[in-house]
Amino acid sequence: MLIEGRAHRSIEEGADGRSARIIDQRRLPFELAFEDLRDHRQAVAAIRDMHLRGAPLIGAAAAYGAWLACLEYEALPPEPFAAAVEAALASLEAARPTAVNLRWAVRRQRAAIAKAGSPREKAEAALLEARAIASEDLAICAEIGRHGAGIIEALHRKKGRAINVLTHCNAGWLATVDRGTATACLYEANDRGIPLHVWVDETRPRNQGALTAWELSQNGVPNTVICDNSGGLLMRRGMVDAVIVGADRVARNGDVANKIGTYLKALAAHDNGVPFYVALPSPSFDPELADGDSIPIEERPQDEVLRVTGLAPSHGHGGGASRVEAELFAPGTRAANPGFDVTPARLVSGYITERGVLRAEALASALA
Amino acid sequence: MLIEGRAHRSIEEGADGRSARIIDQRRLPFELAFEDLRDHRQAVAAIRDMHLRGAPLIGAAAAYGAWLACLEYEALPPEPFAAAVEAALASLEAARPTAVNLRWAVRRQRAAIAKAGSPREKAEAALLEARAIASEDLAICAEIGRHGAGIIEALHRKKGRAINVLTHCNAGWLATVDRGTATACLYEANDRGIPLHVWVDETRPRNQGALTAWELSQNGVPNTVICDNSGGLLMRRGMVDAVIVGADRVARNGDVANKIGTYLKALAAHDNGVPFYVALPSPSFDPELADGDSIPIEERPQDEVLRVTGLAPSHGHGGGASRVEAELFAPGTRAANPGFDVTPARLVSGYITERGVLRAEALASALA
Repeated sequence: MLIEGRAHRSIEEGADGRSARIIDQRRLPFELAFEDLRDHRQAVAAIRDMHLRGAPLIGAAAAYGAWLACLEYEALPPEPFAAAVEAALASLEAARPTAVNLRWAVRRQRAAIAKAGSPREKAEAALLEARAIASEDLAICAEIGRHGAGIIEALHRKKGRAINVLTHCNAGWLATVDRGTATACLYEANDRGIPLHVWVDETRPRNQGALTAWELSQNGVPNTVICDNSGGLLMRRGMVDAVIVGADRVARNGDVANKIGTYLKALAAHDNGVPFYVALPSPSFDPELADGDSIPIEERPQDEVLRVTGLAPSHGHGGGASRVEAELFAPGTRAANPGFDVTPARLVSGYITERGVLRAEALASALA
Repeated sequence: MLIEGRAHRSIEEGADGRSARIIDQRRLPFELAFEDLRDHRQAVAAIRDMHLRGAPLIGAAAAYGAWLACLEYEALPPEPFAAAVEAALASLEAARPTAVNLRWAVRRQRAAIAKAGSPREKAEAALLEARAIASEDLAICAEIGRHGAGIIEALHRKKGRAINVLTHCNAGWLATVDRGTATACLYEANDRGIPLHVWVDETRPRNQGALTAWELSQNGVPNTVICDNSGGLLMRRGMVDAVIVGADRVARNGDVANKIGTYLKALAAHDNGVPFYVALPSPSFDPELADGDSIPIEERPQDEVLRVTGLAPSHGHGGGASRVEAELFAPGTRAANPGFDVTPARLVSGYITERGVLRAEALASALA
C-alpha cells in the first residue's frame, strides 16, 4: 500500500539476498524507518519486541527468519545444521504465544527444509517457502478484501448512504504483507467507489489505532479516531453500520482471540444489532483448539500501559528527534497488561475468509 | 481523604472568606496544586475546563460559584443585583451539560437567594446553602459507602477470599467533596478490614484512572491499573467479583449516563454474571428525564484524544517541571470525543444510594 504516494510492502527480501527488510512499526506513524533482519535472532527479536506485529505478518517474518537461520548455518555438516536450524525454528515459534500463524509458518518451513537435501538446498527451499507464504498472504488478503467489500457494498445499497465501519487495533496492511485483512475490505470497497467512513479505535495499549488511521489516510480512506471507550455509544446512536476486526487465532468452534478489547466491541455490536465480522485468513484458524478458552493469552510488560510514546507538540512534526515518552500514572502505580481477549463465536456475525464469508459452523470444513 | 498522610477535601472555603479553594485536578497525580476561585467566572472556567470534575463536586463548585457571584455584585441595588446573579447562575448551569448536579445545585441556590432579603443577606444565604450542599454530599457519600461496603462484605463472606472490584473513571473522593461515591464503598470496606483489590480502568481520554489509582494508593487500598480494553477478559476469567461505577446523571427509568466506556463494562459484566453497581447520590438522579437517550452527551475537544500529558521518565518524578505532552497520532489525524455514554437500566444490578441499594423501579419513589 501507499506511504506518501509510494507503494510498500511490510516485509521484503533484502537486495543483498541474505536479509529481510521490515518497517520498524514502533516508530510509526511518526517516522518511516526500515530494519534489515540479518539473522534469525534479529527476526525473533523483531517479533517478540513488536518491531512488527499482526498475525499474518508475524507468520511471514517467522518464515523469513527460518530462511535466515538456514543461511547462518549453511556451512555446517548436515547433523549440526539440522540441530541448529531446529533450535532456531523453536525460538521463532516461541517468540509470541497468541498468534497461531507463527506455529503454522514454522511448521511449513520445518517440512520444506526436511524435504530438501544439502544445507544449501535446504536454505534455497526455505527461501522458496518464505516467498510462497508471503505471496499466499497477498492472495488471501485480496480475496478477503473482495468478500468483505461485498458486505460493505450490500450495506450501502440497503442504506443508500456512506457506510460507517468500526475497526479495532490494526488488521491493516501493516499487519500482513500487503492490503491487510480487515482493511483489505475497506480498501477494496473504497476502490469500488463505495462511500465509506471508518471509526478507528485507539487500541490501548500500544495504540495500534494510530497505525490504522495513518495507513487509511495515506490510502485515501476517510477515518476518525475514537477512544476504545466510545464504540458502544456510537453503536447505540446508529453511527456504526458494521464492525470488522482481525484475528490472532480462531479456535475450531469460532471463538476469536484478537487484540484486547475486541470482545467489548463484539458485545456492543450484539446489543445494538450491528453486524460484527472477523477477517480471518485460513492460517489464523486453529482447528487443533476446541475453543477460545484454550488459546494462550500473552501477558505483556506493564510499561506498555504506564508509558506512551508520541511527538512533542512544541517541536513540530516528523523526524525522530522530537519523539517523547510520557508516564501516565503516579510513580509506583502497578498495571496489568493482557494482550488479547477472546470473543465467543456466538457474537460473530460472520468470518470473512479467502473462501467466502462463513459462519462458525462452516470454518472447520472450509479452512482446516 | 489522605494525600501524603494529610487529610484534604476537594473543595473548601478560602481563609479570606471570599473565595473557594479547589485542587487543580489537571495536574494530578503528578503535582498537588491548589487553585483559589475568587469570582463566579473562575468557578465556571474551573468546571468547564475540568480543573475539577465529577458530578457531585461539580454541584458543590457551582454552589460556591453562586455564592461568589453574590459577593461580586453585593454593592449593586436589588434589581441589577438580581439580574447579574441570575446571569451568573445561568453561566454556571451551562458550564457542562451532562451532570445533572449542576442544574440541581444552581436551582437550590436560586431558591435560597430568592428567599433572602438584601444583596448582603442573599450572599449570606448562598454561603449557607453552599455549605449545606457540601455537607450533605459528605453525608450522602458516607451512607453510600456504608451500603456499598455491605455488598463487598457479603461477597467476601460468600467467596472466602479477597474481593476484586473493577471501577471505571474516578468516582472517587476527588469527584465529590470527600470519600467519593464508588470509592466510598471501597474505603469503607477497606476500613472494615475486608480484603480487597481494585482493578482501575485507565479511562481514556483524560485518564481519570490515574486519579483513582493514586487516591486509592494514598489511602491504602490495593489496586492495579488496566487499559479500558481489559475488563472483558478479566471478567471472563473470573477475576472480577463486582463492578462499581459512579454516575453523572441517572434518568427516571434507571438509565445511567457516566463516563464514556461505562456501557461496555456493563455489557461485559452482564455477559459474565458479574454484578454491576452504580453508586448514585440522589442529586445525580434526574426524575425529569424519562430515559437515558434524552440525557445530553457532551462532545469534548478532539485534542483530549490526540494528546496526553504525563511525566518525562528521564527527568525523575514529581514537580511541575518534568511534565510533558505527547501527540499520539500522526499530524492531521481527526478524532471524535464523546464524554459520556448511556448504560441501560437492564444492565444495572443495583443502585447504591444514600437510602440503600435500590433497583431501577424503586429509584423514583425513593430519591425524587
